[in-house]
Amino acid sequence: MKILEDRIRRDGMVLPGDVLKIDSFLNQQMDVKLFTQLAEEFARRYDGEGINKVLTVEASGIGIACITALALGCNAIYAKKHPSHNRSKDAWSAPVHSYTHGVDYMMTVSKEFIEPGDRILLVDDFLATGSALVALAGIVRQAGAEVVGAGIVVEKAYQGGHDKLTGMGIRVESLARIKSMDAEKGAIEFCE
Amino acid sequence: MKILEDRIRRDGMVLPGDVLKIDSFLNQQMDVKLFTQLAEEFARRYDGEGINKVLTVEASGIGIACITALALGCNAIYAKKHPSHNRSKDAWSAPVHSYTHGVDYMMTVSKEFIEPGDRILLVDDFLATGSALVALAGIVRQAGAEVVGAGIVVEKAYQGGHDKLTGMGIRVESLARIKSMDAEKGAIEFCE
Repeated sequence: MKILEDRIRRDGMVLPGDVLKIDSFLNQQMDVKLFTQLAEEFARRYDGEGINKVLTVEASGIGIACITALALGCNAIYAKKHPSHNRSKDAWSAPVHSYTHGVDYMMTVSKEFIEPGDRILLVDDFLATGSALVALAGIVRQAGAEVVGAGIVVEKAYQGGHDKLTGMGIRVESLARIKSMDAEKGAIEFCE
Repeated sequence: MKILEDRIRRDGMVLPGDVLKIDSFLNQQMDVKLFTQLAEEFARRYDGEGINKVLTVEASGIGIACITALALGCNAIYAKKHPSHNRSKDAWSAPVHSYTHGVDYMMTVSKEFIEPGDRILLVDDFLATGSALVALAGIVRQAGAEVVGAGIVVEKAYQGGHDKLTGMGIRVESLARIKSMDAEKGAIEFCE
């Protein structure tokens, strides 16, 4: 999506350690007018799919998930992260390893919020190795609901998350797909 | 705000320990159509105040803050919570004690996102003792910016947060103000 790629080129900073810093418009400052354009693009790509819920994970996915839910005319839900691996009988849960922070945590959603028959769009700000998205998809399937697809703002296409999700039979729509980044030159190359 | 009070009466559950559970529409499931109505009410009450940024704290405030920012035509920012009390030179920070979780944490916002001259609306889902809102206000004032006021979805009016904020010279607009709750009877009384 050209406006997003242009914005990443303009405001993004490539830092050592394969970090793309775009917190001036995606997180922790959120340009909600841009979010509306991104959300309308997700809605266009998933038009006719009967999505009735948007699911994300706290915290940085919540803003784009809410505005995508507005564009789709449905509710948004966010999974919570817990430091422990305790499971609750009232919640669907899946363990996740965060490569960014080097920790394991448990992702949970109260059982009352996902039901068989739900057609769910997973939404997140970033897709890299895919561990958070795989856990979200696992939660939806535990609940007997359907993952219609994933809507991702920025994908690091070289980190394997996309293939992991499509390998699970999940359609992935990423609005910007980064092919490579060079911290020394500050260069970002997008996929065609 | 009547539609909100009606919704709290219909879907809210009063649990022992002074807990109001409204996570089926406010968090962790978010009824974004309702959020739009709440956001328009905040925008109406703060009309003409020249608000140029909305500030909240992760995670449960992010959804309502984004949709309020849409209604006001500005960006939203969320403060991050860190377990430690380490301060960074690149971030404004304030310590917070969470009565809900019984822990201390540090709330931070990157310095680049709040500047002198900014006119900021604080937004949060709940106001109880006010410790998170007081910390947010402190961060705005450290940055030399102005706190125009606070926009709260649900206030527990008997827990002192409202008076703490007005005592700091901060206007508080709460869309539902709870006077008392009774877990045994499941009763909720709102302020006039």
